[in-house]
Amino acid sequence: MQWKRSNINPWSVSPGSATSTTQETPKTPVHGGDLVWAAALAGCSAEELLDFSANINPLGPPETARAAITAHLDSLKAYPDPDYQQLRQALAQMHQLPPEWIIPGNGAAELLTWVAWSLSRLEATYLVTPAFGDYWRALRAFNVKVLECPLSAVSGRWSLAWNYGYATLRDRSQTLQKGLLLNNPHNPTGRLWIREEICSILDRFALVVVDEAFMDFLPPDQEQSLIPVVRDYPHLVIVRSLTKFYSLPGLRLGYAIAHPDRLQQWRSWRDPWPVNTLAAAAGVACVGDTQFQQQTWSWLPPTRYDLLRGLGSLPGLQPFPSAANFLLVESDYPSSQLQSALLLHYQLLIRDCLSFSELGDRYFRVAVRSAADNQRLLSSLADLLS
Amino acid sequence: MQWKRSNINPWSVSPGSATSTTQETPKTPVHGGDLVWAAALAGCSAEELLDFSANINPLGPPETARAAITAHLDSLKAYPDPDYQQLRQALAQMHQLPPEWIIPGNGAAELLTWVAWSLSRLEATYLVTPAFGDYWRALRAFNVKVLECPLSAVSGRWSLAWNYGYATLRDRSQTLQKGLLLNNPHNPTGRLWIREEICSILDRFALVVVDEAFMDFLPPDQEQSLIPVVRDYPHLVIVRSLTKFYSLPGLRLGYAIAHPDRLQQWRSWRDPWPVNTLAAAAGVACVGDTQFQQQTWSWLPPTRYDLLRGLGSLPGLQPFPSAANFLLVESDYPSSQLQSALLLHYQLLIRDCLSFSELGDRYFRVAVRSAADNQRLLSSLADLLS
Repeated sequence: MQWKRSNINPWSVSPGSATSTTQETPKTPVHGGDLVWAAALAGCSAEELLDFSANINPLGPPETARAAITAHLDSLKAYPDPDYQQLRQALAQMHQLPPEWIIPGNGAAELLTWVAWSLSRLEATYLVTPAFGDYWRALRAFNVKVLECPLSAVSGRWSLAWNYGYATLRDRSQTLQKGLLLNNPHNPTGRLWIREEICSILDRFALVVVDEAFMDFLPPDQEQSLIPVVRDYPHLVIVRSLTKFYSLPGLRLGYAIAHPDRLQQWRSWRDPWPVNTLAAAAGVACVGDTQFQQQTWSWLPPTRYDLLRGLGSLPGLQPFPSAANFLLVESDYPSSQLQSALLLHYQLLIRDCLSFSELGDRYFRVAVRSAADNQRLLSSLADLLS
Repeated sequence: MQWKRSNINPWSVSPGSATSTTQETPKTPVHGGDLVWAAALAGCSAEELLDFSANINPLGPPETARAAITAHLDSLKAYPDPDYQQLRQALAQMHQLPPEWIIPGNGAAELLTWVAWSLSRLEATYLVTPAFGDYWRALRAFNVKVLECPLSAVSGRWSLAWNYGYATLRDRSQTLQKGLLLNNPHNPTGRLWIREEICSILDRFALVVVDEAFMDFLPPDQEQSLIPVVRDYPHLVIVRSLTKFYSLPGLRLGYAIAHPDRLQQWRSWRDPWPVNTLAAAAGVACVGDTQFQQQTWSWLPPTRYDLLRGLGSLPGLQPFPSAANFLLVESDYPSSQLQSALLLHYQLLIRDCLSFSELGDRYFRVAVRSAADNQRLLSSLADLLS
């Protein structure tokens, strides 16, 4: 393998080498979408970057959400409705649930704080790994004892290792005083568990939290959400995000679905107005925007397939199939250096996987963007790797 | 004392009597500003209410903040900068502190969550009472042992009872493993402690949290903030709000000032993007708007004095002097019933003090609003009480 650009040695660019324009020394971020950090490295403005590191729908935000935000600017001088009645009603209608089963949050991340505080009351919590970094943050904040259930890649598919994780999860004597935290589809692998697979082990735990932050990217006939069965499981919490599908991560909006008693307890713990007025208004508009939803469901599968195929055709890269709007890629080259070179020479930001200790420097993750953007990524990678 | 409206018996209106239009049965709120609840009782829209229950600056929001929000709508499709560099830089400049000493929050309320989690590691926490309801929420969430230090009204002035609270606070052997939480100016009494009074006991505690949510309403030559001395006290946390002075409670924005090590610890506990992009942008605009600040400092003292005098001239009402933008009023009549009557007949919302158990039904609190609004309150009260 020869580097076309070996003379300029793109791999020599290390994080922190272009930091003079920032007020603080950039640290390698543990989440995607840190454009201030990336722009400092790339030597351009944040707006000039093409961001494949955050898993955000490129079709949005929907015009309806923007209109709702603008229409509510005058409401900012009042506190938000602490019951968030309109938003909860809209979500309740979408999910065919009573509003009492729904609680909005300042992004799914804020809800993970209360997930972890709930889990801290149990003996320990099983965590499917590699795990979204914010699970670790929340669990460590409240000193939750974590028992890792590692996924492993077998024949190009991520599965719970039978001899460790899955067997443990099926042993009721070990699990009854413990919690389980997983996401579905799984981030960063894109693996989807079917509903029945999770239901079959639900009764074995004191508390099960399923983060479905990317489930809405699946068309209705393919999604595997546990929402339709949540009323059968009082010890189940489902966490959802509204800002990935609707491209509003700057606004902060997620929600949890669980038994009303649990949500009432969370309300007594957390601050009274966690969701800002504009996010609540945008949320109502978003869930009613069926046209935007249809567009997204039409866009994603073929575009993701093309990107998967394109990545797979590049030398040294092995992308995994995914049910979500991102692809995990195994790479023969250090992904942190790949990231630096793409930033410096192409103003493209991919997500290295250094913060997922199980994956390390031989994996990276990319969001599925528009066909044109994806082509720019493929061309840049081809240029770099050929 | 005769009720002018005794024929219609305004006091007979009890909370919950006009609830048919809402989706959930309104509960008596524990905070001011719950307009959805109040509008249901008043039988009008939330916009038609004149809200004296939330302590919000009637001059705002400043036009500069609104412009900043509008200018940042396109930024919503990216995650906020997790370092909030611009906002922290602006606050740092205002307070003449390094940015590392400042952390923004999703309203001061979100920061109180982490205040309480920090306090939960100590033996117990002294709390000056009556206390803002959200202190209780946060402290109870993490099972903090609370030792109440009650204020009592002596000759029209609220003071720590010498024989209990203040003496206890001065006994170093009792306090060294404990925390102290108070606000200055104090809510709901409006009492201001001078800086030196608090500094004199700071060294006696493991952690001192001073909530200065209303301190910015005092003109610079009168304020008593601990910010100028914060670098001398690594165990001091100062909590500030930006949404009361700048009338943006719907946006959620506050900040804390403390030793960088403590703030770094909080960052490791909380979610990565607690403040939404529009709040961060508005915050930068607000702290730079010296014209709005001057207007507020010119408006408040004379307007508050007129309202104080007007309330004091009404039969059965004894308002307390206040350093903040609200007045606590002792009342010969049950304040919950006064609240109901004002809602139903005048679409005016005052803050009953039922949630402050030390005060109960003989106190209410009103925000200082514009001269015209205050006059409407005074006329309505006069009408009701004459």
